Amino acid sequence: MEVDDDRSPRASSVNANDIDFDTVNQSRTERQTLRENSTELLVEEIRERSRQTQWQLNYQEAAIYLEEGENNDKFDTHPRDQSALPAYEVAHNRWFHLLDLIAAILVLLVAICERPAIEYFSLPVGIHASLEMLGLLILSLELGIRFKWVGWRAFFKHKRTVIKSCTIIFMLIESIVVLVRQTSHFRVTRALRPLFLIHTYYCRGVRRITRQILQSLPPILDMIILLLFFMLIFSIFGYYLFSRNKDDMYFSTLEKSFVNLFILLTTANFPDVMMPSYNQSKFYSIFFIVYLSLELYFLMNLLLAVVYDTFSNLEKTKFQKLLIHKRIGCQHAFKLLVSDQNQHELHMKHFMGMMKKYHPSKSRRDCYLVFKSLNTSNTGWLSIEEFYGIYDVAGVSWKLKNEDRIWSSSFKHPFNKIFKAFNMLVRFKWFDYVIYLVIGANFLWILIETIRLSAKSVNLANYDFTASWASIVFVCIYSVEVIIKILGKGPMEYFTLGWDVFDFLVTVLSVIGVLGERFENSFYYVIVLRPFRLLRLFKVKKRYRDVLGTLFVLFSKLTSLAIVTILVYYFFAIIGMEMFLNVDLKNCCKNTSVEDFYAYDNNSIFHGYYYLNNFENILASGVTLFELTVVNNWFIIMEGFAVVVSQWTRVYFMLFYIVMMVVMNIIVAFVLESFLFRIQYRRQMKLDDMDDDSVYRVEVSLSEEEVDMCEKPFSILSGHLIQLQADQPGAYVYKGERSRTKDDFSIKMYGDEVKTWLLEMDKERTSIIESMKGLRTRQRPNSLNLEQNGVSEQLEVNC
Amino acid sequence: MEVDDDRSPRASSVNANDIDFDTVNQSRTERQTLRENSTELLVEEIRERSRQTQWQLNYQEAAIYLEEGENNDKFDTHPRDQSALPAYEVAHNRWFHLLDLIAAILVLLVAICERPAIEYFSLPVGIHASLEMLGLLILSLELGIRFKWVGWRAFFKHKRTVIKSCTIIFMLIESIVVLVRQTSHFRVTRALRPLFLIHTYYCRGVRRITRQILQSLPPILDMIILLLFFMLIFSIFGYYLFSRNKDDMYFSTLEKSFVNLFILLTTANFPDVMMPSYNQSKFYSIFFIVYLSLELYFLMNLLLAVVYDTFSNLEKTKFQKLLIHKRIGCQHAFKLLVSDQNQHELHMKHFMGMMKKYHPSKSRRDCYLVFKSLNTSNTGWLSIEEFYGIYDVAGVSWKLKNEDRIWSSSFKHPFNKIFKAFNMLVRFKWFDYVIYLVIGANFLWILIETIRLSAKSVNLANYDFTASWASIVFVCIYSVEVIIKILGKGPMEYFTLGWDVFDFLVTVLSVIGVLGERFENSFYYVIVLRPFRLLRLFKVKKRYRDVLGTLFVLFSKLTSLAIVTILVYYFFAIIGMEMFLNVDLKNCCKNTSVEDFYAYDNNSIFHGYYYLNNFENILASGVTLFELTVVNNWFIIMEGFAVVVSQWTRVYFMLFYIVMMVVMNIIVAFVLESFLFRIQYRRQMKLDDMDDDSVYRVEVSLSEEEVDMCEKPFSILSGHLIQLQADQPGAYVYKGERSRTKDDFSIKMYGDEVKTWLLEMDKERTSIIESMKGLRTRQRPNSLNLEQNGVSEQLEVNC
Repeated sequence: MEVDDDRSPRASSVNANDIDFDTVNQSRTERQTLRENSTELLVEEIRERSRQTQWQLNYQEAAIYLEEGENNDKFDTHPRDQSALPAYEVAHNRWFHLLDLIAAILVLLVAICERPAIEYFSLPVGIHASLEMLGLLILSLELGIRFKWVGWRAFFKHKRTVIKSCTIIFMLIESIVVLVRQTSHFRVTRALRPLFLIHTYYCRGVRRITRQILQSLPPILDMIILLLFFMLIFSIFGYYLFSRNKDDMYFSTLEKSFVNLFILLTTANFPDVMMPSYNQSKFYSIFFIVYLSLELYFLMNLLLAVVYDTFSNLEKTKFQKLLIHKRIGCQHAFKLLVSDQNQHELHMKHFMGMMKKYHPSKSRRDCYLVFKSLNTSNTGWLSIEEFYGIYDVAGVSWKLKNEDRIWSSSFKHPFNKIFKAFNMLVRFKWFDYVIYLVIGANFLWILIETIRLSAKSVNLANYDFTASWASIVFVCIYSVEVIIKILGKGPMEYFTLGWDVFDFLVTVLSVIGVLGERFENSFYYVIVLRPFRLLRLFKVKKRYRDVLGTLFVLFSKLTSLAIVTILVYYFFAIIGMEMFLNVDLKNCCKNTSVEDFYAYDNNSIFHGYYYLNNFENILASGVTLFELTVVNNWFIIMEGFAVVVSQWTRVYFMLFYIVMMVVMNIIVAFVLESFLFRIQYRRQMKLDDMDDDSVYRVEVSLSEEEVDMCEKPFSILSGHLIQLQADQPGAYVYKGERSRTKDDFSIKMYGDEVKTWLLEMDKERTSIIESMKGLRTRQRPNSLNLEQNGVSEQLEVNC
Repeated sequence: MEVDDDRSPRASSVNANDIDFDTVNQSRTERQTLRENSTELLVEEIRERSRQTQWQLNYQEAAIYLEEGENNDKFDTHPRDQSALPAYEVAHNRWFHLLDLIAAILVLLVAICERPAIEYFSLPVGIHASLEMLGLLILSLELGIRFKWVGWRAFFKHKRTVIKSCTIIFMLIESIVVLVRQTSHFRVTRALRPLFLIHTYYCRGVRRITRQILQSLPPILDMIILLLFFMLIFSIFGYYLFSRNKDDMYFSTLEKSFVNLFILLTTANFPDVMMPSYNQSKFYSIFFIVYLSLELYFLMNLLLAVVYDTFSNLEKTKFQKLLIHKRIGCQHAFKLLVSDQNQHELHMKHFMGMMKKYHPSKSRRDCYLVFKSLNTSNTGWLSIEEFYGIYDVAGVSWKLKNEDRIWSSSFKHPFNKIFKAFNMLVRFKWFDYVIYLVIGANFLWILIETIRLSAKSVNLANYDFTASWASIVFVCIYSVEVIIKILGKGPMEYFTLGWDVFDFLVTVLSVIGVLGERFENSFYYVIVLRPFRLLRLFKVKKRYRDVLGTLFVLFSKLTSLAIVTILVYYFFAIIGMEMFLNVDLKNCCKNTSVEDFYAYDNNSIFHGYYYLNNFENILASGVTLFELTVVNNWFIIMEGFAVVVSQWTRVYFMLFYIVMMVVMNIIVAFVLESFLFRIQYRRQMKLDDMDDDSVYRVEVSLSEEEVDMCEKPFSILSGHLIQLQADQPGAYVYKGERSRTKDDFSIKMYGDEVKTWLLEMDKERTSIIESMKGLRTRQRPNSLNLEQNGVSEQLEVNC
């Protein structure tokens, strides 16, 4: 029943916004006219060729739709028309993404060598301003290409792009000014540089987190207002209560009262702030206990609850939107791949054509396997329902399944036996236990050694750090273990398992450590790496595996969070450096309660060294901001700048505290959400170990004929064999695997809800399509775009 | 079809453990024999009377089962036999519970007047020891009665009771020793006194929280071990890295290194602990940043996640167990109330008999309404399924429904019009807005007044605090509002609404404040009450209503948590007082970094007053422990005692920190859980406001005849009218209301799961019953007890 479905493709490359009705209608009419007097062979050939190019364009566009669905790009930034395709290709090239990323990082890093520069990295004004200029120009290149590809309307509709453009223009002007004047002026706008990094392709995760933070701001602000309101009430209260006590400097004016209660919210000045009044009457402690219980233990926890609720809700909505966005991507692609004659099923040929554009690196066999695994009805044609599964299997890597083979089975005779023995040893239960025992012994050894050293009060500066025999023995055991494991499991399997990679790294570090100790005595720093071997002990208990497993799985998202935090730091660091340039805190704050911390003389025994917490360069600022983040004693730093510069600098520090409070709450909410998701998933699916479920597996069997067909490079692939062999399993079984993402887990977790969402979505779509039927019959070629428009507006998946 | 179902009741008052088969069988045989020769009238009358007493006993026991189901008491502490009933009655008497509670509090409060006593409360040894003795004796009375009622086996099976007995015996001996020696010895056992309070009837909530804390300990301990392990690794690391720096006192030995990293986990010594090494090389800051990121921001958050997960899971399991426990209580009660002739349906007469024992204060009409509302099938007989609903409606308060009546409708002519006008005014939308405006204006006024005072740097000690005309005007407005509202809504409605009560209290406080200012100038303390009027502003926004609503709804549970915290404080305070009695911290810690905080002289400008943070009496200990809980600068207090007493006292402080960390995490988890439950419930039920859903409502209509039947005190109530009027609604509609508990919300929230649980439970029961059928036919009277035994063992609802 193999039908050649190589006829009239649908019109492609028409952007929803800029569709040119006339041209399309015209070409259609032309074709119809041509078909009518189809006697001439030449005309037929031309038509055939144009049909082929049209199909190629359709493949390309379908692949773009699929990519857009996957990357969560809005469909209204779809390439405008055929002429925009090259620009689109460039803008979505990996090398171009990389260039963009490097430029964004370059612009950020310029802060290291600008005034105030880090000592060894200081560069002349001309050089660093030129570097900045270069980075900015590359970044504007990206904008130019984007402009060309999406058209001006979509360009200016996209808020982030507009903001980026304005910032770049402004910064270019500023860096020209710097170049001309040959000196850096007061440039707080540098604080906006993180915007460029957020905009790059590789920072999708960062963008997502940023968006979530921004979206959860309104409820957080409500809570912060509540906090501040109570703070105000209590500071009025505190002022009336304590300002009569002359010893009490904390409440002498309403302003001081407020600032000190703000600091008290961070607990940083407790119990000091209470002591003067506590000295007067013990009952004044009630004021502070009530304040802290209310603000710190009740409202701050509620704040966390609000953040957590908003955050986990956003995660779910986001997941829902993405899922529907992907589906719509599939629908768009599907419409472009079916022919006019059979609009409900997709032919193998067009599928392969699309796959060539979508995953160019995949082999014919892999694409065929993807098709066959999708085609669950075994008809040889894909329905739209089957096509929806493409995101699940497109990224899978295929290999022949061979149950009892290990990697070394194909080795020559004596070796395959030896390696098999290794393999069995590695899989032996007691092998692991022995290793754990060794690690435990090693830990005890290190501990005892250190306690001995510490008890003798040896001055480590003069101590001879040659590696002891014991540490050499331990490292040898570890190395042997690693080698046996690599040989037994094979490098491929070994280096794909998280725990094994972890083992490997720790062992390599240990070996480097011991070698360092052995050959150069001044290399003693590496002994600090010793205790890290012990981390392997955490594989023993399930809860610990959960904890570290969470760390591994969520590494990419944690990185995004860390980047967001660093960018916030960058923002505040630049402002801090511009404001507090050349402020010297040494011996400041005379006659205040924080005097001692800033004392700089050689006489006193105790050094506060707080004058080191300054904004003299970007790294020092980072450390200072981290200290503010940790919150303890942050008011001492604030006090220093308030006394030396101005009382109004408190605003900077307080604002930073509030921002970091929000960010920290998001981090807590994030860790909570991820960990709870993991635990609850495991509980719901009744799994013993998450790792068992972390791989998506699919199996497809091929018959000899099918394998033959795939191997021959010029044979035309078709689906008729699938239909023929629907009942009997093929001889060759292929196994496809990829690691599951959080979306996969979410689909399983919210199984029932997912079904409702999809049903609702289908219903909406159908009703839109129904309501357009009148339109459709008249304007066939555009109906796709109209639908697409209608639905994508409803969904508003922000990119 | 009214059948008199007043025949042979089932045997009652037989405890599952101590069942006496022979007696029951014997009495049964007797009865049967009697029935056989039923010619004699006398015998018939005796039989009738004994049947009546048997029924009365059954009612009593059924009521006890229902109470046990409700209070979550184990069914194996059910009164053993008839002779145990009086003891049971005493032990479950409200006055007895109160006496028990007072005795437990008395024993706790003895700590105030024991050595080291609070100054004004110090009592001679003889008196406080006698007081303690009295308290202990009352408490042991409770034990004695309990012993009598549950029997020795159940008594010794119940762990808490055994522990309490041992503690009481030990304490009695100790207080005798104190009386004999006439001096207090080293008595750390006093720290166990909180046990008695936990054991009392009214502290069910406290018990529940305590149990939850204990149950979530294992996973918490795992996480704490992980934390300590990393701490150990880092302290080895830190020791090697920093002990070469002579300026760095923090890492000079391994022990110091560990202690300082422990303190760093609480952030209390940051950034001080970093500064010496930071002064050496800026890159040492990485060590601290990594340590804090890992321990504080990752692991501590995971700890919270683990606690939250365990906690919310326990909440759910607990809810499930309670639900099933209640059902089993119902089943037991039901079996005792049906007659041998109709084992599947319950007659009105027996229901009323039971209700008289279960809710003695309810009127006949109320009981009839309860019955009718339960009897949804309108048969006049209750099936077991219908009977299950008894917990929902038993506590409802009934009144005649009258839609458009307000409380003042029955007043005489001119008044009912006036009050009606008030009512309309109160319900008028703009009334509230005007009040909010007034409050806002009042807030601004207070703020401006205070700022003016503060700016003038007036010494408040000499300031004349007569109330300004403005504050009088505001208070008048508030008072008028309260009066209008009370008159409009009626006192009943006004004082049952949380927000109105809140308004009332705030207004009364304001009036007291203004009166105080007006009539006595030294009464100026009350001006601090002013700002609290502003709390009313929080009714405006939904999120704030949620926040304060959570506070109101969860007040009882929050109180339990607070009591648990206070008991933990008490425990540690007693230990602290015993250990640090007579320790003087003034001018201690010379030549250490915390010297300044303990300085006690009149020369220095800045007073640390840290010597006030001691354990000189129970209240001072409480404040000191609170300071340790807040964590900031806690190490200064620890350092003081470590220097003056011994380095080993650190163990006490560190242990307290870990315990409080757990308790605090539970508090956070608790607030999170409650708040999220509220938000999610609202979202799931698509409610705008929780308050709309916080009342359980039920409506029942009665016909004239039914009302008549209920009114006549000697008429026998029966269900035949219900059946007759199944179709037509009665003339009188009664409305029953009670506020919903969290269990009610949970049932709605987990609707589907609840059904599965109940199905499973029913299945288990049925299979048990099936498997016992053989047994049952032979030993009818005991079958109930056998089942009860089987199921209750499976469920193990801990009391």
